Amino acid sequence: MAEHSSRAADVLVIGGGIIGCSIAWRLAQAGMKVTVLDRAEPGGEASSAAGGMLAPLGEMLEPRTFSELCVASRNLYPRFAAEIEESSGHHAGYRSDGSLMVALDEKIERELGEIQRVQTAQGYSLDPLTPGEIQGRGADLSPHVRGGLFIPEDHWVDNERLMRALLIACQRAGVRLEAGCAVHKFNLTGDRIDSVVEENDTRYTAKTYVLAAGCWSGKIAEGLGIKVPVAPCCGQMMEFEVERELPFVVRSGMHYLVPRPGRRLLVGATSEHTGFEKTVTANGLLSLMEGAVRIAPMVGKALFLRAWAGLRPDTVDHLPILGYGEIENLTFATGHFRNGILLAPVTAEIIADLIVKGFTSRPIEVYRPTRFK
Amino acid sequence: MAEHSSRAADVLVIGGGIIGCSIAWRLAQAGMKVTVLDRAEPGGEASSAAGGMLAPLGEMLEPRTFSELCVASRNLYPRFAAEIEESSGHHAGYRSDGSLMVALDEKIERELGEIQRVQTAQGYSLDPLTPGEIQGRGADLSPHVRGGLFIPEDHWVDNERLMRALLIACQRAGVRLEAGCAVHKFNLTGDRIDSVVEENDTRYTAKTYVLAAGCWSGKIAEGLGIKVPVAPCCGQMMEFEVERELPFVVRSGMHYLVPRPGRRLLVGATSEHTGFEKTVTANGLLSLMEGAVRIAPMVGKALFLRAWAGLRPDTVDHLPILGYGEIENLTFATGHFRNGILLAPVTAEIIADLIVKGFTSRPIEVYRPTRFK
Repeated sequence: MAEHSSRAADVLVIGGGIIGCSIAWRLAQAGMKVTVLDRAEPGGEASSAAGGMLAPLGEMLEPRTFSELCVASRNLYPRFAAEIEESSGHHAGYRSDGSLMVALDEKIERELGEIQRVQTAQGYSLDPLTPGEIQGRGADLSPHVRGGLFIPEDHWVDNERLMRALLIACQRAGVRLEAGCAVHKFNLTGDRIDSVVEENDTRYTAKTYVLAAGCWSGKIAEGLGIKVPVAPCCGQMMEFEVERELPFVVRSGMHYLVPRPGRRLLVGATSEHTGFEKTVTANGLLSLMEGAVRIAPMVGKALFLRAWAGLRPDTVDHLPILGYGEIENLTFATGHFRNGILLAPVTAEIIADLIVKGFTSRPIEVYRPTRFK
Repeated sequence: MAEHSSRAADVLVIGGGIIGCSIAWRLAQAGMKVTVLDRAEPGGEASSAAGGMLAPLGEMLEPRTFSELCVASRNLYPRFAAEIEESSGHHAGYRSDGSLMVALDEKIERELGEIQRVQTAQGYSLDPLTPGEIQGRGADLSPHVRGGLFIPEDHWVDNERLMRALLIACQRAGVRLEAGCAVHKFNLTGDRIDSVVEENDTRYTAKTYVLAAGCWSGKIAEGLGIKVPVAPCCGQMMEFEVERELPFVVRSGMHYLVPRPGRRLLVGATSEHTGFEKTVTANGLLSLMEGAVRIAPMVGKALFLRAWAGLRPDTVDHLPILGYGEIENLTFATGHFRNGILLAPVTAEIIADLIVKGFTSRPIEVYRPTRFK
């Protein structure tokens, strides 16, 4: 079939998740003509499946520069969410009530102690709490909680709402969102992309291209002869209706409980490298519920609402891929693994700066797309 | 509001589940004009929520006459299902591959021995199997299975399909099915019902009435000044897609695994007297999955499809309520508790005989509606 039409833009973003749309929105705000192509529905994958924690602390993120990137993005979040709300006229469900990490065994108790020591030394605010103090905060947790670390600056967002609001903000800013547009082929001249062709043979041209296709980025980059080692890491999640709302996010090990409006409670998440299938399994549900009930026995009586899975875009070193690589007019914004929601504001800033100004003041050398060679 | 219309029939059946519809179908086959009223969608409650096991053996059902009623109904089933298939032109998913009860602990092992002893003495066929023999039957169960009892004559049916086929058979036989008709009031003359009025004030008259409203029967009977102690007993269920189909039903204690077409597997069931709410809870799901994985570890990898709950109509003595009581022209067919699917054919025969012939050859004295006084 012949390529049957051609649509020109300043920037073409491949991938309509929170990363691609945040970039598109910032570029449109800067006066650029932007098109976003999504293989299915914009916002329909990991961006909506996630738990929405904005919690860079409480984990030992390596290297230090990555930890700083995460904290920087969290610091951008209140303004980012407010701007999206203002532009869209929709609530983004931003919450700044903090996050509590709890230890139910000695191993995690030791880890929390170490996290507190290191991150306090770095100047962050983490409050160690005794079991009694935790009960005093009204979270109705297990009597077996041995202690915890409250992180007042770790926030969270209703990422489904945020994503919907962001899509509206994009449209209002003039971004063209194209659903059901899977990239099929690139037309290149030397080291420059001339156009991309989607599966129905519509051709899209732009001056600059952004690859922000989450775990599908590797497959798409194959069409450019580039190796981008992004692999899907499946996360299973559940949602319940609880009798009494949790006052903040509660985490322990791999399990987290995130309050949502209407006494809903998200329980996450498994981590499975099982390919592109988004599968909810008995073992996954068992692990989530056993973990949740262990942290907060009241979850046992909670009403089950739904279970789902999403695919995090993981990389070999678990760090994102940001900036220009071998193709002159292609910038990468992918591989955000477990931090896609958190890193959206800073990624949008970095990529928009690279495209609009030609540089970013953030140190992004460690995230360069050519590092996997 | 005035009662604004009147629809006459020979028999009015209150309740459009498998019991009510089976009775209506048999009466229509006998040439009667039958109307079925359902408070919501016919077949939409326990009849579709159930697991569909037709397994009167392997449990110590008391009294002996009840056990015999269950076996009698199971013996009617192949013909009953075939007739529904023929009348409706739809498959009912009837399966006669038997059922396996397994013991994973000493207590259940002893129980199975006792069941085998008693039921074999009663002339039933139950085959004790060693762990090796069980593995040889290709069911891929836990290596911790200590032994089992295979019951070749315990069958099962896809009750959702059966119910859909039965509704079509009813319609083809001329039964009038009225959805969304909650009974609001009875008009009585002495000990006879003249008419029933549903919530939108439509009046229905008939010569004879049948109360087959499952766990809602007690509430409805209040309108007659009669006490019918039927209480909802909530059962939570799950459905998975497994890699390899189970060759037969497998049971252990409260847990059962029922194969369905398309490598689906039903896992049931909890028993909770928690009122009329059909709630799926974290504790319920945990119990189902822990039980299922304990019986067949392969279920752990199975894909979760859905979870739901249904309300079994339980009675004080856990026996059904059948036949005429204080109201001359009202016959009861309710309170089938965990045996509604199984008992549909024999219940339909009994009630149709009572209405058409004026008597039944089955001993139903123990199920009389007046026994609760």
